[in-house]
Amino acid sequence: MSEIDIAEVRAWAREAGAYARRHFNNVTAERKADRSWVTRADVEIEDLLRARIAACYPEHGVIGEEQGGGDLDSEYVWCLDPIDGTGAFVAGLATWCVSIGVLRRGEPYLGVIYLPILDDCYWADVEGPAFRNNERITVSDTTLIDSNDWISVSSNAHRQFRIDFPGKTRSLSSIAADCCYVARGSSLGALIGRANLWDLAAGFAILRAAGAVVMGLSGAPVAVASLLDSRKLAEPIVIGPPQLIEALRTSISRK
Amino acid sequence: MSEIDIAEVRAWAREAGAYARRHFNNVTAERKADRSWVTRADVEIEDLLRARIAACYPEHGVIGEEQGGGDLDSEYVWCLDPIDGTGAFVAGLATWCVSIGVLRRGEPYLGVIYLPILDDCYWADVEGPAFRNNERITVSDTTLIDSNDWISVSSNAHRQFRIDFPGKTRSLSSIAADCCYVARGSSLGALIGRANLWDLAAGFAILRAAGAVVMGLSGAPVAVASLLDSRKLAEPIVIGPPQLIEALRTSISRK
Repeated sequence: MSEIDIAEVRAWAREAGAYARRHFNNVTAERKADRSWVTRADVEIEDLLRARIAACYPEHGVIGEEQGGGDLDSEYVWCLDPIDGTGAFVAGLATWCVSIGVLRRGEPYLGVIYLPILDDCYWADVEGPAFRNNERITVSDTTLIDSNDWISVSSNAHRQFRIDFPGKTRSLSSIAADCCYVARGSSLGALIGRANLWDLAAGFAILRAAGAVVMGLSGAPVAVASLLDSRKLAEPIVIGPPQLIEALRTSISRK
Repeated sequence: MSEIDIAEVRAWAREAGAYARRHFNNVTAERKADRSWVTRADVEIEDLLRARIAACYPEHGVIGEEQGGGDLDSEYVWCLDPIDGTGAFVAGLATWCVSIGVLRRGEPYLGVIYLPILDDCYWADVEGPAFRNNERITVSDTTLIDSNDWISVSSNAHRQFRIDFPGKTRSLSSIAADCCYVARGSSLGALIGRANLWDLAAGFAILRAAGAVVMGLSGAPVAVASLLDSRKLAEPIVIGPPQLIEALRTSISRK
């Protein structure tokens, strides 16, 4: 039994998502220092989630996209992306989501990702399995890649990568959503170019429970714990089912 | 005043979309001869729309993705894509839509595109302007392209095109949706690689009303009327605002 009540975390994600949805298509976006978008909804949702966590788990650490982190030496660290895919949110697309991950001693422990427009909640805890709403999900068991199979890639992949994948590529504008569509077996994999801890923590917990593997583009393993310090991936990563990961990885190279 | 009651066409699109939505995430997909997906919902929605059109406009021609066409010499020809973006529909993504276009003497006359998951209806008739639901929309007036601006590209663009666009690329999995996001000024443009008349007819009417222009990748004009015979684009096309179209077009080349 997990130390954290995941049903409650799902309820928080839905509460946050409903709040964001009220701002959808009615949003004033501003640019952050890195030129990416931020909205008032991002900031207010992070506040809301921090308040819920502080009330229930006051001894846990929290790191969030908008406000940074504290107590990262705690046994449990919550990793919050109030709106992952703010670009999609601003553009009127549906793939933005609320991403709530928990690490325990630096390893993925629990993940809840809620896509309000689709009303899809993906979740898993350390004991598995992974779910979309109340339905169990697993990665694809395909061994042969068809021209209609797809992977998701980052939205600047056209500038950074050479991709020889024989199927389709889509960019969902949200790393958390990338993880969910791989976990449900809908996409065969994902190439994630540039990510922070809060983009990945929830997705990694769900992917592991769904049977996916994660690998650096160089083939090196991905140490999630190291993200607690650097907060950014050292290199692009590829995620996918075990039987396809090597084929996916070698079909992609840096330009 | 248009010869066709566009409010009624919007109601048909919503009726069709509601029907499709009931099958969403609960779908049995089959492969067509070209290996693309088709579902029972595609076929049944085209039947539904054909019945509505035949009842109200019996003298009009109709061409649809699933059942082909008849009476294409009529003054008015309806061009139906019951679910544009069946791949997105099957994958559990939100960008699939019902696309209903009308040509008059081979030229775009009216377009209605409904995205059920987002509950967004885009529409315009020959007199303009273009709308998303009840709000007027126009293409972007940007003159400088920022790194967070985006265009949509086809999902096999990574195999077919070299794209030097300095912003982001997204693939929405639906040509009709590509047109809508350009028309509302959310994306700066779109590269459409391979399209049939039913993918484009509604979108072209909405784009024209929103101030967009359409151009072949070679710079040649696009003759919509010719699609009534060949049904397929002669070359990839680029769509976007007039002030950006040449920059977009020249940033893309075939591999």
